[in-house]
Amino acid sequence: MAEDFAELQERYRHFRRERDWDKYNDPKSLILALVGEVGELAELFQWVPADQANVVFADPERKHRAGEEMSDVLIYLMGLADALDLDLVSVAHEKLTAAEKRFPIDEVRGVAPLKK
Amino acid sequence: MAEDFAELQERYRHFRRERDWDKYNDPKSLILALVGEVGELAELFQWVPADQANVVFADPERKHRAGEEMSDVLIYLMGLADALDLDLVSVAHEKLTAAEKRFPIDEVRGVAPLKK
Amino acid sequence: MAEDFAELQERYRHFRRERDWDKYNDPKSLILALVGEVGELAELFQWVPADQANVVFADPERKHRAGEEMSDVLIYLMGLADALDLDLVSVAHEKLTAAEKRFPIDEVRGVAPLKK
Amino acid sequence: MAEDFAELQERYRHFRRERDWDKYNDPKSLILALVGEVGELAELFQWVPADQANVVFADPERKHRAGEEMSDVLIYLMGLADALDLDLVSVAHEKLTAAEKRFPIDEVRGVAPLKK
Repeated sequence: MAEDFAELQERYRHFRRERDWDKYNDPKSLILALVGEVGELAELFQWVPADQANVVFADPERKHRAGEEMSDVLIYLMGLADALDLDLVSVAHEKLTAAEKRFPIDEVRGVAPLKK
Repeated sequence: MAEDFAELQERYRHFRRERDWDKYNDPKSLILALVGEVGELAELFQWVPADQANVVFADPERKHRAGEEMSDVLIYLMGLADALDLDLVSVAHEKLTAAEKRFPIDEVRGVAPLKK
Repeated sequence: MAEDFAELQERYRHFRRERDWDKYNDPKSLILALVGEVGELAELFQWVPADQANVVFADPERKHRAGEEMSDVLIYLMGLADALDLDLVSVAHEKLTAAEKRFPIDEVRGVAPLKK
Repeated sequence: MAEDFAELQERYRHFRRERDWDKYNDPKSLILALVGEVGELAELFQWVPADQANVVFADPERKHRAGEEMSDVLIYLMGLADALDLDLVSVAHEKLTAAEKRFPIDEVRGVAPLKK
């Protein structure tokens, strides 16, 4: 699994290189493509009652459909990371470190902070 | 790096468990949270002319800001994969396999398909 | 109120013209700006339990915050309609006409169609 | 045109009432539906080079497709305004008033502020 993520990145780079599609991968286009996939993900869930979402998506076919849209989001995210030449996983580790400090266990345990 | 992704997943699970936040992680809430982070990413790029985006975001500080918003998207995507109990990287490999067949190199080389 | 919408469009056009900002209003930038505002809207609701959202946002201050983000979405939507030179309200009327036919009352009454 | 917007709101209310769909119109579901439509809008533009977007979408068919997705965004925005019982156009006027003060013509003329 761990191995698979690095493989996925390499494979996606190879996929674009073979098709000469990197030239389309400017950041604004990639973000719009990512938004398109987020939209397809949202559509799957929009009218499912919130408290039934886990049950409805335990169905293997629906779960797989959700996984496909999520994969598309991930793939464009990796494409954007390449376009900007940044190491996404490494920055995500930094963000988690910051979140651990920002939300001390003792203060936030069991209580999600609402956005003001 | 490869190792880091599996570590990131484990670390994020641990983060939520310690704060008892999994109860908030229903799919619709997670997708809205992901949309929030995509929005912050989009805001960074919105008024940057498309052909200057790579240059503007070569600046280390701006690049890092973009990486932070992208990390947040990745983190909620991992949270959603956990909420739905699916293996995101494995489905993404399937999607790439399908894309390789759907877009034969000979037919699409150098030409991005427009959405109808 | 009816009058206000036409006034709003005119006022927003005037706002951009006075600032010489129309040159930034290319469609891709406007969609990214709209995505940014949708993200801010989503953030307000993300961790509010679905069945409490109406109660929580009956609070005048929170309701007004939501209205502000929704206004930003509306404003960029009007900006995009101007950039593309199309009459949004008139196309929306056509869409409603199509929806009335696509979802006959007898067939869909009380049942929201799920996205496949 | 001005008249049409108030008519559009009334007509959409009537559409939902006749189908007994208001019960699905909780705020989180409506925002996800709106995100779905924003995604479809983004997909139309994603791979179109930014400096050709206006030309490509001058084509009547493509322009109309864009208008349809934008209409869907508008319609869900109106649905959310109804669900929250707020007057969207009136709040949008307030936002423009605030924007006029926040961005004095003398200071920002010809220069779009970048998001930090």
